[in-house]
Amino acid sequence: MSGFPHGSSGAGNPYGRPPAGQPYYGPPSAYGGPSQYGSPFASLVPSTFPPGTDPNVVACFQASDQDGSGFIDDYELQRALSSYNQSFSMRTVHLLMYLFTSSNTRKIGPKEFTSLFYSLQNWRNIFERFDRDRSGKIDSSELREALLSMGYAVSPVVLDLLVSKFDKTGGKNRAIEYDNFIECCLTVKGLTEKFKEKDTSYSGSATFSYESFMLTVLPFLIA
Amino acid sequence: MSGFPHGSSGAGNPYGRPPAGQPYYGPPSAYGGPSQYGSPFASLVPSTFPPGTDPNVVACFQASDQDGSGFIDDYELQRALSSYNQSFSMRTVHLLMYLFTSSNTRKIGPKEFTSLFYSLQNWRNIFERFDRDRSGKIDSSELREALLSMGYAVSPVVLDLLVSKFDKTGGKNRAIEYDNFIECCLTVKGLTEKFKEKDTSYSGSATFSYESFMLTVLPFLIA
Repeated sequence: MSGFPHGSSGAGNPYGRPPAGQPYYGPPSAYGGPSQYGSPFASLVPSTFPPGTDPNVVACFQASDQDGSGFIDDYELQRALSSYNQSFSMRTVHLLMYLFTSSNTRKIGPKEFTSLFYSLQNWRNIFERFDRDRSGKIDSSELREALLSMGYAVSPVVLDLLVSKFDKTGGKNRAIEYDNFIECCLTVKGLTEKFKEKDTSYSGSATFSYESFMLTVLPFLIA
Repeated sequence: MSGFPHGSSGAGNPYGRPPAGQPYYGPPSAYGGPSQYGSPFASLVPSTFPPGTDPNVVACFQASDQDGSGFIDDYELQRALSSYNQSFSMRTVHLLMYLFTSSNTRKIGPKEFTSLFYSLQNWRNIFERFDRDRSGKIDSSELREALLSMGYAVSPVVLDLLVSKFDKTGGKNRAIEYDNFIECCLTVKGLTEKFKEKDTSYSGSATFSYESFMLTVLPFLIA
């Protein structure tokens, strides 16, 4: 069966560790080059698969697109992810769709699906690499290393805040499970990209109007 | 019984409508003057009630402080709010505590409790004023007016986003219930105050370092 990202195939880290002395969000190269997001028409006309797309990705898309619309909606995506033993909350699904389409349309086409597929595969590999005892959880210092391997070097204070937000285990030792790890990665990636859009000169600081600040932040709140 | 804010007593709007042409977040006077937040020692030594505090507020604090610690923790606050027919999610309780203590200590003393009491009373009055048919819900244009009466003039795009986030009714007409209204008010108030801290000249734009941006935004994410 063609697999939604859940195994350990593929390379671990396409981004590389940001060099020392860079601002926290790393160098431009940490962001993966040209925009991987859909066209502004993504909500009207399905995009197409990039040339050379792994046939497994295409098969997985077609299996997920249960109504054959050429798009995958939020329920289809949640079902597809769940069928590969990955249970994601609808909140995480919506955050995935928001970040991979840059819109609130809640539909993804082939092109965005391909990006999402490879990102999830990459994050799964990273999670498994750091979950050394296969407990299904990683701790705070492993989260720090995992984010670093994706090019996000967060400060100890930010790390603490992330762990306090995404630890849903209720245990006395702080730990993050896979679905919350994905939500955490999406949040850090999403906020960092939004910040970077405003920090075009890579100075490490960004200026927002009140309107753009609210429009940047609100989509990350509880959905 | 001394009441936690749930009735219609008290003045409606202590802030006044922001004048036309002001940046979205209103004039300095819209924020209620000097800081109403606790001392940096709030987590160590209980604050005291401000002179002239309504005895009802003091009685309500003492009834809520079930273990007599001089502080109210998150569970005590949730229980106290619930006993007055206001069911708040733990997420809303945590957001309340975060915003009224400016910290993640999850304990509030007398001084912060007093601010919280009056804010909730004020928001309750505003909600009831706009919920004209006593349905327990307000619609999008009523939310806009309610926020405006608190000094927050949000754009139509931001209003849409707020409604899409805080409408949990599942009905076909968009509407916001009381507890989600409080969460919405807390979010708008909190984000606006954080923005304003960075916009000291009231220019309508604010500059964040990556670190301050992350530390500003993350506390508002799902708790």
